[in-house]
Amino acid sequence: MHRIAVIPGDGIGPEVIEQALIVLDKISSKFGVKFEYIFIDAGGCAIDKYGVPIREEDLELVKKCEATLLGAVGGPKWDGLPGNLRPEQALLKLRGGLKVYANLRPAVLYDELKDSSPLKKEIVDKGIDILVVRELIGGMYFGPKGREVKDGDEVAYDTEVYSKSEVRRIAKVAFEAARKRKKKVTSVDKANILESSRLWRETVEEVAKDYPDVELSHMYVDNASMQLVKDPSQFDVILTSNMFGDILSDEASMIVGSIGMLASASLGEGRVGLYEPIHGTAPDIAGQDLANPIATILSAAMMLRYSFDMEDAAKAIENAVKIALKEGYRTRDIYTENCKLVGTKQMGKIICENI
Amino acid sequence: MHRIAVIPGDGIGPEVIEQALIVLDKISSKFGVKFEYIFIDAGGCAIDKYGVPIREEDLELVKKCEATLLGAVGGPKWDGLPGNLRPEQALLKLRGGLKVYANLRPAVLYDELKDSSPLKKEIVDKGIDILVVRELIGGMYFGPKGREVKDGDEVAYDTEVYSKSEVRRIAKVAFEAARKRKKKVTSVDKANILESSRLWRETVEEVAKDYPDVELSHMYVDNASMQLVKDPSQFDVILTSNMFGDILSDEASMIVGSIGMLASASLGEGRVGLYEPIHGTAPDIAGQDLANPIATILSAAMMLRYSFDMEDAAKAIENAVKIALKEGYRTRDIYTENCKLVGTKQMGKIICENI
Ligand SMILES: CC(C)[C@H](C(=O)O)[C@@H](O)C(=O)O
Ligand SMILES: CC(C)[C@H](C(=O)O)[C@@H](O)C(=O)O
Repeated sequence: MHRIAVIPGDGIGPEVIEQALIVLDKISSKFGVKFEYIFIDAGGCAIDKYGVPIREEDLELVKKCEATLLGAVGGPKWDGLPGNLRPEQALLKLRGGLKVYANLRPAVLYDELKDSSPLKKEIVDKGIDILVVRELIGGMYFGPKGREVKDGDEVAYDTEVYSKSEVRRIAKVAFEAARKRKKKVTSVDKANILESSRLWRETVEEVAKDYPDVELSHMYVDNASMQLVKDPSQFDVILTSNMFGDILSDEASMIVGSIGMLASASLGEGRVGLYEPIHGTAPDIAGQDLANPIATILSAAMMLRYSFDMEDAAKAIENAVKIALKEGYRTRDIYTENCKLVGTKQMGKIICENI
Repeated sequence: MHRIAVIPGDGIGPEVIEQALIVLDKISSKFGVKFEYIFIDAGGCAIDKYGVPIREEDLELVKKCEATLLGAVGGPKWDGLPGNLRPEQALLKLRGGLKVYANLRPAVLYDELKDSSPLKKEIVDKGIDILVVRELIGGMYFGPKGREVKDGDEVAYDTEVYSKSEVRRIAKVAFEAARKRKKKVTSVDKANILESSRLWRETVEEVAKDYPDVELSHMYVDNASMQLVKDPSQFDVILTSNMFGDILSDEASMIVGSIGMLASASLGEGRVGLYEPIHGTAPDIAGQDLANPIATILSAAMMLRYSFDMEDAAKAIENAVKIALKEGYRTRDIYTENCKLVGTKQMGKIICENI
């Protein structure tokens, strides 16, 4: 029996989570394993209900579960609130509270979805299979920040700060992951300008010594943002900081065609993990059975793999998604001519049937 | 008579600057205006010669000129040096010393070069004409930074810091520029996480009140990095910080097909300006007559426009570039089938002849 904290969140969050749970139920009966779901309010809905993005007692509950499955949080409704009362704070509290320092974001181009990529055929034909390994609980997101009046002028600041031990542990994750892939790590920084990047680069070099079988290169972040568009096939594992990873993983997800397809896992020490789609709450299409549930369903697959060591079950889900795509089923975001347009629920159902 | 500080720099810098000067000489004779060139060493070549990226006395000389035309600085040869001795420090010293806070980076798709864009035809056909207005002398580049040992762990930090007055002056530049264009400003920040971004957003809103004819929207930087690839035609002026502008302007330059085409102007108060191509030193092709001189030639055109108020001369250069492209002349970076391949020098000569 596995206890899972389930956080539907805002916008399309609840709809896509619903489908992921239906898929997990199918896995449960097929693989003879039991899941207990602990539903938790976090994000905008928690602000509306309790006045805070996530209650302390709920955070404690989440920490007691083996894994967390999250939909998405946030929306324009709560955009005017002060920093510490935004829905996004729930995400930061969860990430920080669970100490999940390694955010794994695979950006894979499905053959069936090649036409959805904004890139030219010549580029896309070379294939895209990138794993972004983003540091998740350090850097500017968590460093000292504030606002003050200085000589009559208002000033605000955030601190990008990294320690050697923080860089070392995330670098290890990247090298370990590369070993199971094409054995290439591209570490992205801005070492020509930032002190924190110089420490980053140095430390990554040190860690690399333990992985002589993995090829390491360094790239400046501005160049990386170009190379991702110019020739994404050159990348295997991209290792980078919280802030740069936020930007580059979104760019990577766009070039493979649909952000509605992309899952993510955030891991700490041991088996604890936070699993969520890369996409946001998409308030414009919420509640209309239009959202693509695949990213969340694939996040559930990652949960089975990393937190519950259920590789076969994870593969079964991933395979079921591939079959659904091969058979031509598409939600609106990935629809192209001559495919079969389906809604959120039907996509979930079809994937379930393929398991 | 106009005094121009000329900084060829490293790698392909000297070659592309040479062609820009030939073009300026042609303008000189055609428009009856005199240019005096003061040559200054900066970057790697200055490190080799004097042991510093730029000498203080040279910086003073530059400050006494009306404008600065720069090739490019840096290269792997100097990558191992400590932070304060890197070629890039010359750039920072020049930008900071000249107080050029506004970096204007136009990313325009030339009809003739549509095939060079990595984006699909459907996307490119909608047109790309973006002006990135990047804050250039604030943020993490210039904020407090350092390295220290804390509880036995090495820690390094950089500070993203912005004051209201810094944001106000760069926002004004963006709104003024938008007025002469499609009247749309997209301000890019990470206000859901960063205090400095919240001050940024607030201040941009205030400035916007003086420009009711310009449409303002805000976008998170992660989303912006996606939207640039998904549908660049949605953008007119992008207003953003130093760090985010570094990343997004490079991405924008890649989607229009060649970074070898893109000029930039860095402006402060009054007419002082620093003009440079967006591309780097490209050490792999340096000294082989392969580099594209157009970005530098167009930077010289921007200098005529912004620092010397010579709109006609600027237009003459821009027009001459267009004719060269229409006639099918291409350097290697923008070469496609059935075009006429030329080297750095010949491209400069052809553009000169078209003036
Ligand atoms: C919502 C936001 C705080 C978050 C982040 O910046 O980390 C999101 O963009 C992400 O990438 O998960
Ligand atoms: C060379 C580097 C310091 C510089 C920067 O980051 O500003 C460059 O990338 C640029 O964009 O002009």
